[in-house]
Amino acid sequence: MEHSAALVPATLPYYVAFSQLLGLTVVAVTGAWLGLYRGGIAWESALQFNVHPLCMVIGMIFLQGDALLVYRVFRKEAKRTTKVLHGLLHVVAFIIALVGLVAVFDYHKKKGYADLYSLHSWCGILVFVLYFVQWLVGFSFFLFPGASFSLRSRYRPQHIFFGATIFLLSVGTALLGLKEALLFKLGTKYSMFEPEGLLVNVLGLLLICFGVVVLYILAQADWKRPSQAEEQALSMDFKTLTEGDSPSPQ
Amino acid sequence: MEHSAALVPATLPYYVAFSQLLGLTVVAVTGAWLGLYRGGIAWESALQFNVHPLCMVIGMIFLQGDALLVYRVFRKEAKRTTKVLHGLLHVVAFIIALVGLVAVFDYHKKKGYADLYSLHSWCGILVFVLYFVQWLVGFSFFLFPGASFSLRSRYRPQHIFFGATIFLLSVGTALLGLKEALLFKLGTKYSMFEPEGLLVNVLGLLLICFGVVVLYILAQADWKRPSQAEEQALSMDFKTLTEGDSPSPQ
Repeated sequence: MEHSAALVPATLPYYVAFSQLLGLTVVAVTGAWLGLYRGGIAWESALQFNVHPLCMVIGMIFLQGDALLVYRVFRKEAKRTTKVLHGLLHVVAFIIALVGLVAVFDYHKKKGYADLYSLHSWCGILVFVLYFVQWLVGFSFFLFPGASFSLRSRYRPQHIFFGATIFLLSVGTALLGLKEALLFKLGTKYSMFEPEGLLVNVLGLLLICFGVVVLYILAQADWKRPSQAEEQALSMDFKTLTEGDSPSPQ
Repeated sequence: MEHSAALVPATLPYYVAFSQLLGLTVVAVTGAWLGLYRGGIAWESALQFNVHPLCMVIGMIFLQGDALLVYRVFRKEAKRTTKVLHGLLHVVAFIIALVGLVAVFDYHKKKGYADLYSLHSWCGILVFVLYFVQWLVGFSFFLFPGASFSLRSRYRPQHIFFGATIFLLSVGTALLGLKEALLFKLGTKYSMFEPEGLLVNVLGLLLICFGVVVLYILAQADWKRPSQAEEQALSMDFKTLTEGDSPSPQ
């Protein structure tokens, strides 16, 4: 019984389900905001700007967050399958975010607006470049068949730390973007508790909740993916020793 | 030699020094911004608002961050001394932040402005309440002499996770506040690369760097404070066993 509990921790599925509920709610509320207060979404029109927040929330928040959770959710699959899924989810997230970036630069160009003057845009470019570099370095170390076992072991904690950091920076950048969109449109009306202001504030809190729940799932030491036989033999811990369990392939 | 390296990891002091340099720069740049572009600081005048960003940056960013680093910096002192310092730094941070909060509410009242309508204010109140609750719960578990060893062990990871989360939320809330201060004053002039806009953008990036460096120091497993003799005997790990070291009181 303790053995099976070690394979799928009892409360993990509930936290994962909650994270997905939050993530989908974030995407839905973003869509609702753009539909209700910003005229909806289209590429070839003044609505092109609205492609930006929706794509960034889907790519850089929801899918990036889910890519981080892959190792907690898929616990029995082969390590390589899980790795490929993790890498692929990041590729899809990256492409969707790229569409969102092209949308805002193209919109600015058509309107004659300046680019890259705001804190939101500085953070956004920084995060996007870091995200791309992290993917490239991760790919070279973990999927490309060159890196040695010891090199991978030394890079792994750095990859995890910077992955979580880039995800949190994405959430922070989204909050700055929401604030910018509100203040440019509402101005001092923001202080009159306009419905759009309240909705976007709620969206901001939901984004924070999604970020915190994903981070919480990642931070639980007991919820980490169990090592596989060959790795477990190398990293067998004290608990296993004291309990007299031999490391099993599962 | 490896033993002394385990006591003070070779590169930790450089990271800590860098974090302090960043933290002091953040405080200095905040002061410079308020002095150069906002008329400086005073309580009984329209400048009362400016007390708010300065106090929040000193309390909720710099001192809160330093309080988290106490367990990494003071490695040889008695656990209790370190705990008390950790708790006291948080008290000082809390009091300074409280002054910053009173300043903005008092300023709003005098000017007849609405309170608590923005995402920045919602996040700010949430973080401040969570910070207070975290301190109270931490005090009851770790300093008040009632909690058992096993209760403390179970609560410790939660305390660490939520401590780091509250710190990161403080950084995020500060970024939202900077953005709000800029957009209300500069409006569309923000897009003309005004010097104030650029300075505050740089301040935002410095805040992010401070947050990331503090988090990086906290996240390094090797940099955690070594357990003391009585605790080490209980949590002795595989590495110690394989190296044949007996847990020493240091």
